[in-house]
Amino acid sequence: MSRLTLALDVMGGDIGPRITIPASIKALESDPMLSFLLFGDSRQILPLLENIPAQLKDRLTVCHCSRVIENEQSLTYALRHSKGTSMRLAIEAVQKGEAQGCVSAGNTGALMGLAKVILQPLKGIARPALLSIIPTINGKKSVMLDLGANIECSAEHLYQFALMGAIFTEHTLGLIYPRVALLNIGIEEIKGYKSIREAAEIIKKDTALNYTGFIEGNMLLNGQADVIVSDGFIGNIALKTMEGTAKNLVALLSGGSHSHVRRYFKSIMQFLFKRFFKQSYERISRMNPEQYNGASLIGLTAVVVKSHGSATENAFYYAIKDAALQARQQIPAKILAGLERN
Amino acid sequence: MSRLTLALDVMGGDIGPRITIPASIKALESDPMLSFLLFGDSRQILPLLENIPAQLKDRLTVCHCSRVIENEQSLTYALRHSKGTSMRLAIEAVQKGEAQGCVSAGNTGALMGLAKVILQPLKGIARPALLSIIPTINGKKSVMLDLGANIECSAEHLYQFALMGAIFTEHTLGLIYPRVALLNIGIEEIKGYKSIREAAEIIKKDTALNYTGFIEGNMLLNGQADVIVSDGFIGNIALKTMEGTAKNLVALLSGGSHSHVRRYFKSIMQFLFKRFFKQSYERISRMNPEQYNGASLIGLTAVVVKSHGSATENAFYYAIKDAALQARQQIPAKILAGLERN
Repeated sequence: MSRLTLALDVMGGDIGPRITIPASIKALESDPMLSFLLFGDSRQILPLLENIPAQLKDRLTVCHCSRVIENEQSLTYALRHSKGTSMRLAIEAVQKGEAQGCVSAGNTGALMGLAKVILQPLKGIARPALLSIIPTINGKKSVMLDLGANIECSAEHLYQFALMGAIFTEHTLGLIYPRVALLNIGIEEIKGYKSIREAAEIIKKDTALNYTGFIEGNMLLNGQADVIVSDGFIGNIALKTMEGTAKNLVALLSGGSHSHVRRYFKSIMQFLFKRFFKQSYERISRMNPEQYNGASLIGLTAVVVKSHGSATENAFYYAIKDAALQARQQIPAKILAGLERN
Repeated sequence: MSRLTLALDVMGGDIGPRITIPASIKALESDPMLSFLLFGDSRQILPLLENIPAQLKDRLTVCHCSRVIENEQSLTYALRHSKGTSMRLAIEAVQKGEAQGCVSAGNTGALMGLAKVILQPLKGIARPALLSIIPTINGKKSVMLDLGANIECSAEHLYQFALMGAIFTEHTLGLIYPRVALLNIGIEEIKGYKSIREAAEIIKKDTALNYTGFIEGNMLLNGQADVIVSDGFIGNIALKTMEGTAKNLVALLSGGSHSHVRRYFKSIMQFLFKRFFKQSYERISRMNPEQYNGASLIGLTAVVVKSHGSATENAFYYAIKDAALQARQQIPAKILAGLERN
């Protein structure tokens, strides 16, 4: 692995440094070639770094700033008042070449807006997109984009998302000629918005893409496609619906009660489940939502990863690992090369 | 309960009479005031009616027709060649007043198209919509519309969906002043398509509607709103994504293996689960997808219920029950009255 520095906005998210700092330390422990620039309030950060070994501390630089973009701020307000905030400084560090990518759990709209303005889209990219990796029922992974960066998209935009998604998938999931599908309300060619039908025609003609047709909402987790393309509105609705449904079902299955007897039987059930449905259990474990917490803003000149605002320590840790992988794989450069080849 | 006749297209769906006839018999058994006109191939239907008691047979009229609209037919082809098909004849029976509602598990596009042309939208309704009832995590129910009848919708269309949905919910779920929400990608007022933001303004001003704001995909099953409104594209993606996620998770939890030992432990687990997580179990049972199989086309002058093409006997039975309830509640007349009041 190559040496790598990431800029972390440690103030974002619902909890801030109490989550992001332990997650950063965990990432340093697991990756000896990684360094961080930590942007945030040093009075909150420094106490959390007191007891860590010197060899880790050497790879951390605390960049103090007292200003933060709040989750509740409107996009316009946040962008106008972004100077000197932890998020903006982290992105600027990447722009100046001090770091090779950045991670934030803060206000998504502001992160996308600032990243687009400061880091700029790659040459030829009309619209950067928000991308996430999702688990599939067969124990593998798919990639979905756009998840909310662009509300309304033309056929050409969707085509660019397909290209970016395929290149991303090839290099981060290691899939050769990944299968690309467009999210639609039916699989017949006549279904859906005009922009989706036109995108299908454009994608079909590009032999660099392994286009497999339309995919419906009920097939998103079935591993039928490696790259699932939609506009940001539809992708956002689909992703959140999946998350909500899974969370609710798991909550129902774990039961609401906490009496001792029930807890006892629950643990027996879990034991039996692990023992006799090992494969299913492992698949569910692999579907651990913390691993799928990060969303990447792709189509920019550098790596930007957004972690959930309600991220746990593990979830923020995985977001950092995602950013490190993308930076080392030089995803932005590969997307640029892919676009130029077309 | 009042006397009621429904027209059933018994040929639709993946299986046809072998599913729809036993479902119809079950519905007759449970509802002594119900009669059916059965449209389909009498050579397939009559053998299935041979052994049923005379008091049930008396409430069945087999209307023979040999033509069927296939699932694979394109909408244009299906409509153009619909004369004399079981689906069209069932709808025509409603139009002639021979039946008070109809049920089909056939081609959804054709059913919507024919119903719109033959039964006509209610006065003042620009766009009939497809509506489904969904289960919520708290053991209750919500209503979602549109689910695919209208791909692109104006603010005024969404407003009419809200009105129709609220009236439907009041009379079929028995909820007073049901809470109405618009499906969007965020809860802030500035989020989403212009049509959705404008619809919010219109709905807010109508005191007949209990508007609670935007709802995101991850909250659809949480019982936060009784009526969830969106255009047909987004509603279709959200509903199918919910169905697919739930189905996949339940499949994972039930394990893929069928060995005797595993089956045995599975039954033990199910027993323990029922015994010690009774409340959760009952909630999951209530979420039985067969009960939520039907989708209603509302905004027309009569009741039209679409059952899933892959419906089981129970599922088609519930679709019939849905149609009977809506016809007895005179939902079309109540929607018309609600529109005129506004």
